[in-house]
Amino acid sequence: MPELRKDPIIGRWVIISTERSRRPIDFAVSHGKSSTKSCPFCEGNERKTPPEIFAFRSPHSYPNESGWQVRVVPNKFPALRIEGDMEKVGVGMYDKMNGIGAHEVIIETPDHDKRMHEYSVDCMTKVFEAYKIRLQDLKQDMRFKYILLFKNEGELAGASLSHSHSQLIALPITPKRVCEELAGAQEYFQYKDRCVYCDIIREEQNQRVRIVYENAGFIAFCPFASRFPFEIWVMPKRHYADFENITPEEIPVLADMMINTLGKLSVALNNPQYNFMLRTGPVRWMRSGYWTTIDQDFHWHIEIMPRLTRLAGFEWGTGFYINPTVPEEAARYLQEVVL
Amino acid sequence: MPELRKDPIIGRWVIISTERSRRPIDFAVSHGKSSTKSCPFCEGNERKTPPEIFAFRSPHSYPNESGWQVRVVPNKFPALRIEGDMEKVGVGMYDKMNGIGAHEVIIETPDHDKRMHEYSVDCMTKVFEAYKIRLQDLKQDMRFKYILLFKNEGELAGASLSHSHSQLIALPITPKRVCEELAGAQEYFQYKDRCVYCDIIREEQNQRVRIVYENAGFIAFCPFASRFPFEIWVMPKRHYADFENITPEEIPVLADMMINTLGKLSVALNNPQYNFMLRTGPVRWMRSGYWTTIDQDFHWHIEIMPRLTRLAGFEWGTGFYINPTVPEEAARYLQEVVL
Repeated sequence: MPELRKDPIIGRWVIISTERSRRPIDFAVSHGKSSTKSCPFCEGNERKTPPEIFAFRSPHSYPNESGWQVRVVPNKFPALRIEGDMEKVGVGMYDKMNGIGAHEVIIETPDHDKRMHEYSVDCMTKVFEAYKIRLQDLKQDMRFKYILLFKNEGELAGASLSHSHSQLIALPITPKRVCEELAGAQEYFQYKDRCVYCDIIREEQNQRVRIVYENAGFIAFCPFASRFPFEIWVMPKRHYADFENITPEEIPVLADMMINTLGKLSVALNNPQYNFMLRTGPVRWMRSGYWTTIDQDFHWHIEIMPRLTRLAGFEWGTGFYINPTVPEEAARYLQEVVL
Repeated sequence: MPELRKDPIIGRWVIISTERSRRPIDFAVSHGKSSTKSCPFCEGNERKTPPEIFAFRSPHSYPNESGWQVRVVPNKFPALRIEGDMEKVGVGMYDKMNGIGAHEVIIETPDHDKRMHEYSVDCMTKVFEAYKIRLQDLKQDMRFKYILLFKNEGELAGASLSHSHSQLIALPITPKRVCEELAGAQEYFQYKDRCVYCDIIREEQNQRVRIVYENAGFIAFCPFASRFPFEIWVMPKRHYADFENITPEEIPVLADMMINTLGKLSVALNNPQYNFMLRTGPVRWMRSGYWTTIDQDFHWHIEIMPRLTRLAGFEWGTGFYINPTVPEEAARYLQEVVL
């Protein structure tokens, strides 16, 4: 059973994989590029993954067989396990708990070589519909406090299989960085009686120097204090905290936004590796000992982080970043890309 | 002039290099391995660096000429600039300030090929004496709030020159992660009336399952909630907050500790790339609007982070880590290495 361990100084939880522990020699092994034949995410290889949790399928096709467009399966090497009870124990002065949680893989397309920015609006729409369905389902599990949805594109960005996929991790705790963001948004709301993200959207529309792309429902921009070169945030213009409250009509508009934004990135930076993360509202959110709602304060969004620079030691250790590209210049390069 | 920009949600400051902004094409350029001939840190090439700030030199040698053992110079491409006044301005709803600060390079040895774990006790002692002297000097500058001392070993770890060196950045702000650690240590002290780091040392000496190396003055161990495989913290057993209060007698003991710890890492993991960071007390520390002393609460230490795994998207974005190696197992491997 994996463990969650808590740092006694700053209170950060870490997942320790106790089962498949990596020894010194294991770090020398490099990942090879997977081929269609052996790829567990390719159509026809459905038996190579654990049984599917959800799929968009053609009529008359069967679960765990071909005929799907998007397929959600449990991670074969999960960081957390879904079965079991939460058990919290002390180890001397330290705290740990069972690594209970869900770890799922969203296989975005049956096509082994298609990258996300090449998807059709229809295909991209199905991916985000699958996210919504999984979030709605997992939020019913009372053991979970936060659900992370993210994508690692490319080996440098942490992807161990090249077939396009995203991942979901449901956690029994709220990660420290997420807590900080929620608390920051709450404080801003208490002070201004306005959502900080709505204010940021208005400010970006006003200054017009960091916008990458905008459509009827969404805006993409390089944030003012970008940590990384060509960092992009995508936000719905309508205020709502939880991604799963997106309407069926809004999903294709988001699909258009993502195709354009990722497409511009791919042209400007020659298919960079990247991560993105969907920051949605927490399942349950406790602050200073009270359960609280943050529907007014928080505003879901997607953070896209191209992996262009190497994080140096002090950035890792301090969370303090040096960004060698001015966000306004990054936005200008991206805006000028015609797809 | 570089800029410091503040994230309006979580309050994180970022350095934006406005001067040598990197365009899309610049990210394709890879660093070549530097040779002795062209290396600005090699003996005989002293004119290739900005004029030295400090050096340990043989008698009768002259500044900016050969004959040195450790040499400190300004970074040729500084992330922050030492000249100028602090200017804080708003940009719409956002906040920024001038990028005032110091960015220095500690060239640890004249020998191009020597790695830190291969240093003699005498050489390592001089490196830490140089750190102490630079910290003492820079702490006099009233513009600075925090001084970071760190080392990037290897290209993957962010080093752009292979000649062994460490770096120092003096900042007009305290990085968010450092603030959290200081606040965490303060809270623990308020609750227990004891230093959390002293308690951790006692706990490690008691459990004896995560210790890597111990000598008369220092202890090295894999922390209970290690973020990374083979992460190691080195702490003085004597309680004091600020590194520069180390005594002349303690420095060679620290040198022995670092040679052994880095030596074990290098054998166990076949010369891994790594970062380390010296976490010392802040120059000036304000909490909830009050200047406060943390001499009792904080305890300087060194965090060593081998770069064995790639940070995946959700680790970057959430500060929430999955560590594939159990800290107790990592410690056992390291402890068993005989140098």
